[in-house]
Amino acid sequence: MARAHWGCCPWLVLLCACAWGHTKPVDLGGQDVRNCSTNPPYLPVTVVNTTMSLTALRQQMQTQNLSAYIIPGTDAHMNEYIGQHDERRAWITGFTGSAGTAVVTMKKAAVWTDSRYWTQAERQMDCNWELHKEVGTTPIVTWLLTEIPAGGRVGFDPFLLSIDTWESYDLALQGSNRQLVSITTNLVDLVWGSERPPVPNQPIYALQEAFTGSTWQEKVSGVRSQMQKHQKVPTAVLLSALEETAWLFNLRASDIPYNPFFYSYTLLTDSSIRLFANKSRFSSETLSYLNSSCTGPMCVQIEDYSQVRDSIQAYSLGDVRIWIGTSYTMYGIYEMIPKEKLVTDTYSPVMMTKAVKNSKEQALLKASHVRDAVAVIRYLVWLEKNVPKGTVDEFSGAEIVDKFRGEEQFSSGPSFETISASGLNAALAHYSPTKELNRKLSSDEMYLLDSGGQYWDGTTDITRTVHWGTPSAFQKEAYTRVLIGNIDLSRLIFPAATSGRMVEAFARRALWDAGLNYGHGTGHGIGNFLCVHEWPVGFQSNNIAMAKGMFTSIASLCLPEPGYYKDGEFGIRLEDVALVVEAKTKYPGSYLTFEVVSFVPYDRNLIDVSLLSPEHLQYLNRYYQTIREKVGPELQRRQLLEEFEWLQQHTEPLAARAPDTASWASVLVVSTLAILGWSV
Amino acid sequence: MARAHWGCCPWLVLLCACAWGHTKPVDLGGQDVRNCSTNPPYLPVTVVNTTMSLTALRQQMQTQNLSAYIIPGTDAHMNEYIGQHDERRAWITGFTGSAGTAVVTMKKAAVWTDSRYWTQAERQMDCNWELHKEVGTTPIVTWLLTEIPAGGRVGFDPFLLSIDTWESYDLALQGSNRQLVSITTNLVDLVWGSERPPVPNQPIYALQEAFTGSTWQEKVSGVRSQMQKHQKVPTAVLLSALEETAWLFNLRASDIPYNPFFYSYTLLTDSSIRLFANKSRFSSETLSYLNSSCTGPMCVQIEDYSQVRDSIQAYSLGDVRIWIGTSYTMYGIYEMIPKEKLVTDTYSPVMMTKAVKNSKEQALLKASHVRDAVAVIRYLVWLEKNVPKGTVDEFSGAEIVDKFRGEEQFSSGPSFETISASGLNAALAHYSPTKELNRKLSSDEMYLLDSGGQYWDGTTDITRTVHWGTPSAFQKEAYTRVLIGNIDLSRLIFPAATSGRMVEAFARRALWDAGLNYGHGTGHGIGNFLCVHEWPVGFQSNNIAMAKGMFTSIASLCLPEPGYYKDGEFGIRLEDVALVVEAKTKYPGSYLTFEVVSFVPYDRNLIDVSLLSPEHLQYLNRYYQTIREKVGPELQRRQLLEEFEWLQQHTEPLAARAPDTASWASVLVVSTLAILGWSV
Repeated sequence: MARAHWGCCPWLVLLCACAWGHTKPVDLGGQDVRNCSTNPPYLPVTVVNTTMSLTALRQQMQTQNLSAYIIPGTDAHMNEYIGQHDERRAWITGFTGSAGTAVVTMKKAAVWTDSRYWTQAERQMDCNWELHKEVGTTPIVTWLLTEIPAGGRVGFDPFLLSIDTWESYDLALQGSNRQLVSITTNLVDLVWGSERPPVPNQPIYALQEAFTGSTWQEKVSGVRSQMQKHQKVPTAVLLSALEETAWLFNLRASDIPYNPFFYSYTLLTDSSIRLFANKSRFSSETLSYLNSSCTGPMCVQIEDYSQVRDSIQAYSLGDVRIWIGTSYTMYGIYEMIPKEKLVTDTYSPVMMTKAVKNSKEQALLKASHVRDAVAVIRYLVWLEKNVPKGTVDEFSGAEIVDKFRGEEQFSSGPSFETISASGLNAALAHYSPTKELNRKLSSDEMYLLDSGGQYWDGTTDITRTVHWGTPSAFQKEAYTRVLIGNIDLSRLIFPAATSGRMVEAFARRALWDAGLNYGHGTGHGIGNFLCVHEWPVGFQSNNIAMAKGMFTSIASLCLPEPGYYKDGEFGIRLEDVALVVEAKTKYPGSYLTFEVVSFVPYDRNLIDVSLLSPEHLQYLNRYYQTIREKVGPELQRRQLLEEFEWLQQHTEPLAARAPDTASWASVLVVSTLAILGWSV
Repeated sequence: MARAHWGCCPWLVLLCACAWGHTKPVDLGGQDVRNCSTNPPYLPVTVVNTTMSLTALRQQMQTQNLSAYIIPGTDAHMNEYIGQHDERRAWITGFTGSAGTAVVTMKKAAVWTDSRYWTQAERQMDCNWELHKEVGTTPIVTWLLTEIPAGGRVGFDPFLLSIDTWESYDLALQGSNRQLVSITTNLVDLVWGSERPPVPNQPIYALQEAFTGSTWQEKVSGVRSQMQKHQKVPTAVLLSALEETAWLFNLRASDIPYNPFFYSYTLLTDSSIRLFANKSRFSSETLSYLNSSCTGPMCVQIEDYSQVRDSIQAYSLGDVRIWIGTSYTMYGIYEMIPKEKLVTDTYSPVMMTKAVKNSKEQALLKASHVRDAVAVIRYLVWLEKNVPKGTVDEFSGAEIVDKFRGEEQFSSGPSFETISASGLNAALAHYSPTKELNRKLSSDEMYLLDSGGQYWDGTTDITRTVHWGTPSAFQKEAYTRVLIGNIDLSRLIFPAATSGRMVEAFARRALWDAGLNYGHGTGHGIGNFLCVHEWPVGFQSNNIAMAKGMFTSIASLCLPEPGYYKDGEFGIRLEDVALVVEAKTKYPGSYLTFEVVSFVPYDRNLIDVSLLSPEHLQYLNRYYQTIREKVGPELQRRQLLEEFEWLQQHTEPLAARAPDTASWASVLVVSTLAILGWSV
């Protein structure tokens, strides 16, 4: 996917004004929304009656002597995808959008969400709930100050507020005579009771050695070595993000949609390793793999997930310093550690180490991309044959590509919800079709596929936009300018340790030239059977500097506003995954560039070759040659001969067209004049 | 000049790791430095004996019961250039470098400065002084904690510490049982006594209306209107930067080298205007121009410069809110205003307004650049004739270009110390020659001229690098890549409100491609007879977003490390001033680009045309056409016929050369193959 990405880590959504959540707005059919101003109110059938649960919640609030209770939409690990049993805000409000915070007082209840979800909220919430069309903590606090009396107590679950969010509430309430009260028992859970979906309990398994870059022992030693080298010599690292624990121990499970993780924390000290998770989920082999029966520095002691606060508190009594990544640690952990015993960085050493893939991890990720290309090419070939029949819609198409990916070796499902969008739907940044609501694919429209797979060896993410008929000149121009953006950034040579934000404009220049642009980010890190949006790599201002061995997606796009351009009802996005590699420069120096590892050709039907420079053509033809070399033999080995033929056709070298632009003409005139006698 | 610039505002030096001060390192002849480890110590003749003044300073410190006294190198307005009477650190230490802080305790004295000045410091300081080779407040505080006893008082002049610097001292000393003590009477001044150079006292004059973009009354009304629109509705704006007061009232003087300013503050309230300056410096006409005899909201009351603290304190007693620009306001002002009465922004509304030139200011600045081009072209023609004779050196050359500028209409001297550097000296970023130490210009070496003028209508800054003989292939390549960088950034089309830092890599790409780069910034704002380095416009991370009507310099450079490349003993820099203008794009949108207003052709002897794309050539030839149109008639009008002839020759359109790179060849092969039958 090609968004200003929150990685596995939606905590960063909070930092970015142009953030877009993952879950699509649910189209519930036109404007059939509630009307609370009539008597009785008009409520569509999609509304959830929340009167009883709100009454029960207020009883719980009274028990705790609270004037208000905050119900965020997050979970305790800032996961990008939220498990059903963590959908507290959705359950109490009825509103299922991926972004939004609810606050309940003794008299009122309100939800704050952004413009993507306003209609959805009016379709799903009953009249117990006010809808506030703002984001951030400031409007919530402003509302609270008018709604609750001086001396009032505002309760919250400390595991559902990030450190930053808690600080912004705390700062805004300072001096207001209202008190923030951390309550570890979630009050919504108490009301939800037995209806609440259970916490996942599938086995937690170790990856086969063939799919890991290092053993967990090597990783543990590496992190400890970083602890010793750190200026403040922390005695422990606390890992809050599920991907951190999964990476460190090479363990996986399926607790979270699209992410192969399990609910856990890790407290890695200089002399012990404590993994907080449900012990019954480990097989005896896995327990043995973790050395869980001993207590030495290389033995993983498994403690119950629910013990993490108590264990941290007990550990904090000693002469210790606990290192945390502040971007994704929740206040519930943070408040247990005395400030003088905290060592804080934006990202933990596990996040920083994980960002740079070693040579085995690089090879694994590349291999997964070859098989992923096979699946996508199979789908494109299938579309070419079936779209003209009029039998394919966005949803059935998405099912087919998911099926083809599922047939690839080591497949473990999609890495995010497939975006399969035809015509004007492709202009909606994060549209995904449903069985009920979708659009038929047609040779008269562009089609955008943004999808990826989880494989034991790697996570993939690729976007291609295609047109099977006769695209308009504007469509071709927009597509080609998007393509030039991808090429210009992919082939850029830049000094080592350059930040992505310093160079991402190269992906935009060709669009800017024509007065086009996009409001999204230009790419994101990606993991080895981990997150499809893996922080902290990418092109945003809060991403870390580029280094050899990182993988990032490179995506540029063009989403003309429907109705704004005569023939602008489409969306174009091209996205590839690339490895950061050393660049050989004419003069010596430490320079980097990108090596694209996504291997699906672009749609030559949409390329206006006259817009490409010789350098663009050279790059593209070299890339096509690489695709042939990487994917061709795999298709042949698998007897996918039709696909092999398609690949050969679609990777034929593109030829330069005679320049026909005014600029060339004028240069030629000048050249002629110069040849006629002027000195140069 | 083309540095990571501190504008008139060296306060920003503190923010940037790659900062370079303005004053050149004084080459005092090889390695003849002090040796304090021998007995008696070895002291070169360049050393200043500071024993008596240090003794006198310590007596003053005792009177104030101080354990230490901090002596920064700044003045009270964060001026880029410091008046002689403000050279306190230079006077007390003997060390005259432009960057460095001294601290004196009862037993020791020490200076902290960066690597540019280490040798100079060892040549100028006697053995009373330790030299510390670090920057920033942290090492100073670390040293203080070991040198002064618990309970010790650390004195400082609050007018010489910015808010940020004071905060970093304050934070570092918190809990250490050492106290920061603000002492408004400068102790060095007390010791300096009658030897201290007098404060300038030349007349302060009003600019003629022909040279101003708006009357001071219009500017005052505009600022008041911004006060009313500000969320916090400040009742006053306090102006600390000399350029703010100069701009607001269209007043100028010559207190500061290269900057036409005078020592002053302004307190502009909703109902009054107070200008703090020496009243005797205003003529009766200027007093009348300022309406200084009345007391209404449009009358400028002149109060003595020394009264500013008392006046602010008195004003702060009321129900007021005072708006300041925190980047350049000193602690001596800041500490007088109760925190709840402060309205803080990085830059004052005067700084923000001044950054966008209105159409008259644009026309004035452009006109000054046409005359400036005449002076530079006269110099280049003069060099072409005189360098081969072997009679020109860097210093005498600089005198000539300064002389030619001085002969231009409305000239008011150079806008900074002329950088005139031949051969390897051009690789030193901020080298300026002296009468004693300079290098002869030669047809065998490159020559770099970075210089500018102050004119009543505008301030200029231009850099050209030339070679009169046969440049090496590396020199031509490096020059051409630098030129491509300037062109690529100058012709970039980008969305309105893009930050310079987002696009400055376009000035580097062509250098990066070959493994070359530069450690400097890529340009800076510039004023109308104001600062040559005018904040907050530019390409650094602390610059504000680009807007129509701003002027910025665009500079890329290449300074190969001497000895690193076989033939790398040179420095290349090209710098032009450009106006930010609206761009017309094919599809509608709010886009900007640059219009270059420096009108001196590049050295075609150094351009490798084969590296230029058709777009580069088209841009260059259009630029040359503009130079002919703008400067040609001016040269003819002035009967500068030799210069006119030179201009025609040097602006002849450049012709495309046949492509000879491998990339073209391969594309052509591909094209041929394609033409032979492959589909595209």
